[in-house]
Amino acid sequence: MKIAILGLGTVGFGVYDIIQKSEYLKDIEVKYILDKDSSKQDLVKSKVTSSIDEILSDKEIEVVIECMGAKNFSYKCIKEALLASKSVVTANKEVIAEHINELTEIKNKRNVSLYYEASVGGGIPIIKPLHNAALVNEVSEIKGILNGTTNYILTKMSVEGLSFEEALKLAQINGFAEADPTADLEGLDMVRKIAILSSIGYKSEIDPEKVSHFGISNLSDKDIKYADSKNSVIKLIASSKLVDNNVELKIEPVFVQKGSMIASVNYEFNVIEVKTNINDKLTFMGKGAGRYPTANAMVNDLIMIKHNDKNYSFTQKSKKEYKDLEEKYSYYIRLKDDSEICDCLIKEKEGNQLITNEIKKSDLNKILDKVCFYARIGE
Amino acid sequence: MKIAILGLGTVGFGVYDIIQKSEYLKDIEVKYILDKDSSKQDLVKSKVTSSIDEILSDKEIEVVIECMGAKNFSYKCIKEALLASKSVVTANKEVIAEHINELTEIKNKRNVSLYYEASVGGGIPIIKPLHNAALVNEVSEIKGILNGTTNYILTKMSVEGLSFEEALKLAQINGFAEADPTADLEGLDMVRKIAILSSIGYKSEIDPEKVSHFGISNLSDKDIKYADSKNSVIKLIASSKLVDNNVELKIEPVFVQKGSMIASVNYEFNVIEVKTNINDKLTFMGKGAGRYPTANAMVNDLIMIKHNDKNYSFTQKSKKEYKDLEEKYSYYIRLKDDSEICDCLIKEKEGNQLITNEIKKSDLNKILDKVCFYARIGE
Repeated sequence: MKIAILGLGTVGFGVYDIIQKSEYLKDIEVKYILDKDSSKQDLVKSKVTSSIDEILSDKEIEVVIECMGAKNFSYKCIKEALLASKSVVTANKEVIAEHINELTEIKNKRNVSLYYEASVGGGIPIIKPLHNAALVNEVSEIKGILNGTTNYILTKMSVEGLSFEEALKLAQINGFAEADPTADLEGLDMVRKIAILSSIGYKSEIDPEKVSHFGISNLSDKDIKYADSKNSVIKLIASSKLVDNNVELKIEPVFVQKGSMIASVNYEFNVIEVKTNINDKLTFMGKGAGRYPTANAMVNDLIMIKHNDKNYSFTQKSKKEYKDLEEKYSYYIRLKDDSEICDCLIKEKEGNQLITNEIKKSDLNKILDKVCFYARIGE
Repeated sequence: MKIAILGLGTVGFGVYDIIQKSEYLKDIEVKYILDKDSSKQDLVKSKVTSSIDEILSDKEIEVVIECMGAKNFSYKCIKEALLASKSVVTANKEVIAEHINELTEIKNKRNVSLYYEASVGGGIPIIKPLHNAALVNEVSEIKGILNGTTNYILTKMSVEGLSFEEALKLAQINGFAEADPTADLEGLDMVRKIAILSSIGYKSEIDPEKVSHFGISNLSDKDIKYADSKNSVIKLIASSKLVDNNVELKIEPVFVQKGSMIASVNYEFNVIEVKTNINDKLTFMGKGAGRYPTANAMVNDLIMIKHNDKNYSFTQKSKKEYKDLEEKYSYYIRLKDDSEICDCLIKEKEGNQLITNEIKKSDLNKILDKVCFYARIGE
């Protein structure tokens, strides 16, 4: 089987490396690698080319592994590869979150495969088990810590007592956080991932734009200490619920009781919980990123193609309504300076830090302009 | 696709029920059900027969789903079905643990499938991800709580303060424990499961006879309280390690620090951790038993066959040596009345309860006749 790898960066090189070293994959030939930097030819035996057309017009190429992580160009390459009847493996959460339905339709028409196990949870096998669960069960809830950067920062602060700035800097030094960490800190990375998981679980295209998100950019060690005084730690959690035909999608910081399973998921580890009508709760845990976990997940996708498993298909079942399900929670709130909220909402208050009575998310939204940081209390 | 279900008990009826109700599986016809009790014909539309030969001689039958949970008869049926070029799905951990190699060779020769996802961890998808991980990675360690009955008892004792007898009775009332709970309490059920997982992970047939096991039959609330005083809970843990070509397999009670992930896995939940050279640690958690989780896992196996994924194969790589890896641990020990052990082994002692210095498992084995209950300290 002849394949092409698009992009010879961290993950692309990992994929190349695993294939070269694996006895099991010795019948797979990486014929091309797409990369603008022709000097990378020295690193690999495959032909390095800057022309995607050269790859897509080669009838021998059966599979394209997209490792560029770009937005528009990656989307274009994935779509054209499928249209050229080539199977595609990608870890590109942005492209998958936005175009899952269109790309799945194309791959179905061309009778090829599209796999994206590595787009959520890095090396954790979650897409395939979730897809299988959704085939015969009704998935009702998906929840998890889907971003290693923010979980690393939260852990460093609560376990080791670092400040937010120190923890962020350390995450950047260790390669967990981007130079511009905004997408991670604001929860945008998790938005894409929960949209992908919800699309598969609920068999319906979920628009990432509909996911409400509040991140940890404004987090201070005061918040960590307050949580600690309540025997809790703060975790940034993505949650998605389906009730009848209404889906609620949100990313928000949560006070999680110490001793619970979610509270034990620390540093760069991710966790995903899936509830179905049959299996109660299934939990998957592992490192959410890194060269080899991600590359390994992509190679496993390649193996599924090698095994001729073409039937892994996202099927649109019905459109869902996006809705605040109006469940009531208590929230921890740290108010902006000189801000006040109605006493009627307050259960207890110390300075500008308070715990609300149980209120709806929609009521929280009404006072959000006065809030510096908040966290939901309880998973 | 026409199939047969062997056995219309708890799980067999679950499988039948899921297939009947699923839109996705509407092209699957359950043509026969093997059951001695012909009165069960009233419950199903399929033909109930007591003749396995009738089923195996029917060329239309492509898949046999074995739900009898017998030992010799189940083995005979599975083997003969494969020899008759029919694919097989089973949850039978006893048969798989003892005959994995022989049955895999037959199914490879006949170019059919043999799936047994439900044999370990009930509804938790672990066999397939572990198999995939082992294809391109080196699996070095497999560890977990693989038995719901004992975990339920341990949780009821440590969280709710029940006595061993009360907890066992409650497990039996709730259907988690068999009338004769010996296989669960002595760790024999876990022996089979860790043997299956190790066979797949290390690509080598692992003999269940080689797994050392010490269960919780002698557990008393004194042990639970002692663990609590060490900020720990007791969990019955299966562990399997591969170092070079040596494999160590054991089931034993362990003092697990409160707040750790394993300590948070309670009641009938199971957890499995897999370490590989690439993925660090992957963790899978869920309910380990029950009609619908188990039946659902078997139906997912059926879907893999429907998708024509025949390549899920256990391949013998090399024979492993069974070995005590001689790692040193401290152990908690409750001595039998009037028993004494050498002071040189003891770190601290209160009455007949003590903590040893760090010693080898082989040294523990030498004094085991004086031990009423023990637990390793630390995962």
